[in-house]
Amino acid sequence: MKQQPLIYLDHAATSWPKPASVGKAMLEILNGPSANSGRGNYGMALQAGRTLFQTRAKLAELFHIDNPNDLIFTSNTTEALNLALKGSLRSGDHAIATMVEHNSVRRPLEYLKRTRNISVDYITVNPDGNLDLEQMAKAFRPNTKLVVCAHSSNLLGCILPIREMGELAHKHGALFVVDAAQTAGGYPIDVQTMGIDLLAFPGHKGLMGPQGTGGLYIHPDVDLEPLMHGGTGSQSEALEMPTVRPDRYEAGTQNAVGIAGLGAGVDYVLEHSVAAIYEHEWQLTQKLIPALLTIKGVSVLGPGLDLPRTGIVAFTLEGRDASEVAFLLDRKYGIAVRAGYHCTPLGHMTAGTTQGGAVRASFGYTTTTEEVEQLILAVQAIASDT
Amino acid sequence: MKQQPLIYLDHAATSWPKPASVGKAMLEILNGPSANSGRGNYGMALQAGRTLFQTRAKLAELFHIDNPNDLIFTSNTTEALNLALKGSLRSGDHAIATMVEHNSVRRPLEYLKRTRNISVDYITVNPDGNLDLEQMAKAFRPNTKLVVCAHSSNLLGCILPIREMGELAHKHGALFVVDAAQTAGGYPIDVQTMGIDLLAFPGHKGLMGPQGTGGLYIHPDVDLEPLMHGGTGSQSEALEMPTVRPDRYEAGTQNAVGIAGLGAGVDYVLEHSVAAIYEHEWQLTQKLIPALLTIKGVSVLGPGLDLPRTGIVAFTLEGRDASEVAFLLDRKYGIAVRAGYHCTPLGHMTAGTTQGGAVRASFGYTTTTEEVEQLILAVQAIASDT
Repeated sequence: MKQQPLIYLDHAATSWPKPASVGKAMLEILNGPSANSGRGNYGMALQAGRTLFQTRAKLAELFHIDNPNDLIFTSNTTEALNLALKGSLRSGDHAIATMVEHNSVRRPLEYLKRTRNISVDYITVNPDGNLDLEQMAKAFRPNTKLVVCAHSSNLLGCILPIREMGELAHKHGALFVVDAAQTAGGYPIDVQTMGIDLLAFPGHKGLMGPQGTGGLYIHPDVDLEPLMHGGTGSQSEALEMPTVRPDRYEAGTQNAVGIAGLGAGVDYVLEHSVAAIYEHEWQLTQKLIPALLTIKGVSVLGPGLDLPRTGIVAFTLEGRDASEVAFLLDRKYGIAVRAGYHCTPLGHMTAGTTQGGAVRASFGYTTTTEEVEQLILAVQAIASDT
Repeated sequence: MKQQPLIYLDHAATSWPKPASVGKAMLEILNGPSANSGRGNYGMALQAGRTLFQTRAKLAELFHIDNPNDLIFTSNTTEALNLALKGSLRSGDHAIATMVEHNSVRRPLEYLKRTRNISVDYITVNPDGNLDLEQMAKAFRPNTKLVVCAHSSNLLGCILPIREMGELAHKHGALFVVDAAQTAGGYPIDVQTMGIDLLAFPGHKGLMGPQGTGGLYIHPDVDLEPLMHGGTGSQSEALEMPTVRPDRYEAGTQNAVGIAGLGAGVDYVLEHSVAAIYEHEWQLTQKLIPALLTIKGVSVLGPGLDLPRTGIVAFTLEGRDASEVAFLLDRKYGIAVRAGYHCTPLGHMTAGTTQGGAVRASFGYTTTTEEVEQLILAVQAIASDT
């Protein structure tokens, strides 16, 4: 089959291409220590420590976190969410989530229902992506320990009203946990003004770093049971994990190579600004949506035109399986999109697409208008070729 | 302070330098897909899947594992041990470990003592590194669920009799868990003939890969509760983690970049052979130990001359703090060793070095005889300069 230039529209899965600085930073650490950056055991240890701290400091700047040591590195968002949820929910606790959660939130909650007898309410989101805040307000109980939600649905692209949700959570004495898998680096996040107690984020999506990186912000007043117990290089003789951060939550050898790459990715985001990245991706969605809606049989999921959304546009084509459409886009038009169930059965219930799934196109800062035009032409051709 | 060529003798912490092929393989995945290796969503997904599988297959060859899908990737050995121990030990279970365990085994066990009321016996190892097998044989109880041990002590360098330990474990119906932090890639491991049910290993030490990689082999008959619950790209609609491996234990986006580098590292090990690597490192220990023993005030930990050991030689210098000796080696002689407590308070109790710690030199396949001679001269100079 003939090769065409790749049009990559799956940034919600992982951003690509990465800035060249990312690989460069990784190789510097992998092949370090250089003659200039310290040597010997102390030198190498210091260099690794410096790398970790520098990336922490950049992330703290991005998310408006006072103390970089309240940022914990994890291998992905899933680990961060497992730490947040398993580290805080105790036997008999109640949790509130939403009907657009990814399996990275739903499966830990279901595991805790089974093993710790917690209870969970999933608050309704309508197909346009609007959360029922009144329903949520009524869901609190005396034993509600936390509210957890996706900042943006990985299927609908809608942006949840996290400031209001955070206020409700705190009014009821609950923690507020945000899954920023689709927003970190692509939509403004301020843990202070948004009242976020625990922020889980990936390194390899909007933050432009490599796979194998991610993290969790933990509010200084919140103590979690660590997910990993092991060596920390500090308080070796203690049976328990140290209380000092980040050591408490980072057992074993950390991914200094990946974290160096993540630092370069965050530099890229800070340099171009989250506001500019959001505006660019949003404009592309506003070009795609009306064009898709003129195609017979196409339905677009999530918020209507002119409303805020992340760079995600999922759609269905009547009578056609999403996987078939994505396959044709890939093989005939060289356009990479994601099809299927996107690890969010709740989101598909909300969207009404539990049969057949949906085709999802998602944009990054490097996506061009021309690429979106190519996608439109391709979907038009597929729709007319029945 | 003047810079000298670095003599890196801390391979037990992380191997360095890495083969050039490691960084090359990482960048290929980070910056892929290339025009030749598949494109589009399917193409990229397949490429990442291929990378993971290829590394799994190489590790399976190295450890004599039948089915590569029984190998689970983790971010480090600590995560692998947390999965092995927390995933198998249930309320009221009994576990047997040894007095040379790293905190990556001890702290999860102590956590489980506190939270699941398990009990643990730590079997005596004498200062030469010999495990008391008779004491171990007597330690089994009807509720003994598993035996866990370091294959080699990260302080003493001794190699534990894991074949005999595995036989004892199986005789009593217990699982056998091995922490191969100091042996994977540097000492032969055969999970079948050694009777290993769960093998935890790092990617960035003897296997020559990058930090952020590691793994756990899980015997096909053993089912663990996953440590992470989340999206797997399979059976999305299920509330529980899928039963199919490796998906069951690998939630969220995997570190394809790091795992590609690990694959290149394992290639290096397979090419040079574990036997040759072991022999090289062992010969260096046999050069160092008698020379150290001629220095007044020096005591060497672990097995005596001519006995098997990994490429680790820890020693103390009477009247001098280990940290001071390591500092001088680093700053005055450009020799990187590790000093202090090495995350193994149990090991220090065994060695009798809970006061002052120990200086640890550790070798890799790239370490030269000349480098060991430099270390000997430096320790001689430090010892005479009181």
